[in-house]
Amino acid sequence: MSGTTLDDYTGRYATRVHGMAQSEIRALFSVANRPEVVSLAGGNPFTAALPFDDLKEMFDKLFSDSGAKSLMYCGGQGDPALREAITEVLDLTGISASADDLVLTTGAQQGLDLLARTFLDPGDIVLAEGPTYVGALGVFQAAQADVRHLPMDEDGLVPAGLEEALKGLRKEGREAKFLYTVPTFQNPTGVTLSEERREEILRIAERHGLLVIEDDPYSMISFEGEPPAPLRARVDRGVIYLGTVSKIFAAGLRLGWVLAPPAVRDKLLLAVEASILCPSSLTQEATRRFLTEMEWRQQVKVFTTLYQERRDALLGALGDYMPEGATWTRPGGGMFVWLDLPEGLNSKDMLPRALSERVAYVPGTGFYADGDGAAHMRLNFSFPTAEDIREGVRRLGGVIAAEKQLRDAFTGEN
Amino acid sequence: MSGTTLDDYTGRYATRVHGMAQSEIRALFSVANRPEVVSLAGGNPFTAALPFDDLKEMFDKLFSDSGAKSLMYCGGQGDPALREAITEVLDLTGISASADDLVLTTGAQQGLDLLARTFLDPGDIVLAEGPTYVGALGVFQAAQADVRHLPMDEDGLVPAGLEEALKGLRKEGREAKFLYTVPTFQNPTGVTLSEERREEILRIAERHGLLVIEDDPYSMISFEGEPPAPLRARVDRGVIYLGTVSKIFAAGLRLGWVLAPPAVRDKLLLAVEASILCPSSLTQEATRRFLTEMEWRQQVKVFTTLYQERRDALLGALGDYMPEGATWTRPGGGMFVWLDLPEGLNSKDMLPRALSERVAYVPGTGFYADGDGAAHMRLNFSFPTAEDIREGVRRLGGVIAAEKQLRDAFTGEN
Repeated sequence: MSGTTLDDYTGRYATRVHGMAQSEIRALFSVANRPEVVSLAGGNPFTAALPFDDLKEMFDKLFSDSGAKSLMYCGGQGDPALREAITEVLDLTGISASADDLVLTTGAQQGLDLLARTFLDPGDIVLAEGPTYVGALGVFQAAQADVRHLPMDEDGLVPAGLEEALKGLRKEGREAKFLYTVPTFQNPTGVTLSEERREEILRIAERHGLLVIEDDPYSMISFEGEPPAPLRARVDRGVIYLGTVSKIFAAGLRLGWVLAPPAVRDKLLLAVEASILCPSSLTQEATRRFLTEMEWRQQVKVFTTLYQERRDALLGALGDYMPEGATWTRPGGGMFVWLDLPEGLNSKDMLPRALSERVAYVPGTGFYADGDGAAHMRLNFSFPTAEDIREGVRRLGGVIAAEKQLRDAFTGEN
Repeated sequence: MSGTTLDDYTGRYATRVHGMAQSEIRALFSVANRPEVVSLAGGNPFTAALPFDDLKEMFDKLFSDSGAKSLMYCGGQGDPALREAITEVLDLTGISASADDLVLTTGAQQGLDLLARTFLDPGDIVLAEGPTYVGALGVFQAAQADVRHLPMDEDGLVPAGLEEALKGLRKEGREAKFLYTVPTFQNPTGVTLSEERREEILRIAERHGLLVIEDDPYSMISFEGEPPAPLRARVDRGVIYLGTVSKIFAAGLRLGWVLAPPAVRDKLLLAVEASILCPSSLTQEATRRFLTEMEWRQQVKVFTTLYQERRDALLGALGDYMPEGATWTRPGGGMFVWLDLPEGLNSKDMLPRALSERVAYVPGTGFYADGDGAAHMRLNFSFPTAEDIREGVRRLGGVIAAEKQLRDAFTGEN
């Protein structure tokens, strides 16, 4: 009996499935990855800068010393020795943590997903910067949460905006389950929450009993000295902290962590076990050796120096090639610049023209839950070379100028 | 302000969290892993039998040829070349599949979790063998599903029991979302669904429009020729199939797959992206090389021969040391034997005595959603040596005999 529909299971899916849709970033990748296209759309660290000879030696040793163990299941919370090593990484950012309070996950993405599963019922309210990390929006959408964006500027999340949103919710008789924030070298804007605002945001959160989820993948990729200390370094409670090896070692290992108070940690641990049993023992052991046997801080410097050169290339090229009316952020670290288009232009509508001119970016709409963001785009500087960045921005400048001309012709301004 | 409760977040958790509890197996591991204890409680393949020199060479080549790519993010569906290699593995079991229809996951456990998230709303009914895989119960519990166990015997799931359950549900005005089954060398019983019953189960499922989720980690670990072909090899629709490299290569890689029709695959892909972005590129590339460059079928033979010797040791020792009234399964493959205790004994109550006698097992209650199973226990033969197995069973025989004596004293039978 052949079906009358392409989907045999229509009507059988869980309610949560109905709202799920492919992110604009993913849909874009197939075109953006063509060799003739300069892609400023990606989000990959530049793994070619890793010391492969050292890695070969490290894996050689790993298989000699602990091969059998590294290929077995391990406990759901993750290897205690690796968790111990991670506390030393956290120490460098000013966070004093116990290995007991860490839960290891398949990338920080899974940490966020498990937190959503732990805290969010359908319809629950989540506060987040506008724009925010596209992967977080995917998690909140799958959890059927109601994301409310908060205003930000060049100093990050605006405290008055947070205060206002919380008061507004109280008037509605609602409460936010948590604030999700990427305070340092944010994805997608590259913006960093200022020292003063960190204290202010924490005071507001404490006053309102608001839980904060701090996602901190980029703070070690800093070009100009130390960034302000993480929120979690300033308070022991009220902040759950997400970290990852994706930017200091390699994203392909899929290894992240959640630092949470014991009651939450216990729930996350059950959620890890139910969803994956445990993260990969092999990538855990590789990471443990990276953090304890290799010159990993030196490696972070290699990444940082490289990305700084590429950021400089991007900012320089933007200055040279962008038409009047375009503005952009000047990140002190991380991997992204956020560009505001000249008035009236739409980054989503412009994308086909950009791709035909062989340059790719991510339209700003991908970073908002509510369709906002069309006046913006995200540009990546960690993966393409300085030369490609310059060529990509030259092409992009031409596309924007052409769109501007078209707009002016329509509005009769030229 | 210091809290008055140990948990700052009481009252804030999602509804689904309230029913989550630690599995009995996990809770047991801390004691069972002490060196003086012979543990028949585990579920680890014997990774020490892997060819570590070959693995060193393989990783060396991996870092030379594709180091940068293997440490980057990859697409959510997983590497197309690995998916292609997996179709060749499936071919050996009689399943003809397209690489397009595979979604790679952090172990088959995550495949199951993502299927639960795709299909299950709270209160939905899932049918499963009684007993069934403890990790599946964890997933269904987290999804707040209502698990109904079906009877099984030495030939696996009883078709009449399935038919009856489906009719009963129809009378209630309910429907099962799917049947979850491990038809070959089942965990925990070691039992295999017979050839005839496979056809019968599929006929019943088709007649009732019942979706089947077939979990097949063990079918390549076969001691006596080929086991009956998987359900998915017999039909193209109505069966979603889960596989893993855990038993043919290594569980520590956390790499599994779901073979699903396109509509379901698309939903799983979104769920993968929202939960982990993508499985580890490194363990994917290692697996691709294992399946295309190494003598992996030879390696499966190594595991199979070893486990067969250990199964024989276990069955022999059970014959020698078990008191009258105890019976057990005789698995033709896989990693587990299921033991029925003499009447009136309780495997959960007996566990403290067993641990003090330095032998561990998993009480049967862990494999039922409803507290059933106390008359049974699961014994593992993949990890302990034949010698340890014999000694463990000798100790266990003493424990059971002592408990039996105690029971007889109480009931005045002695």
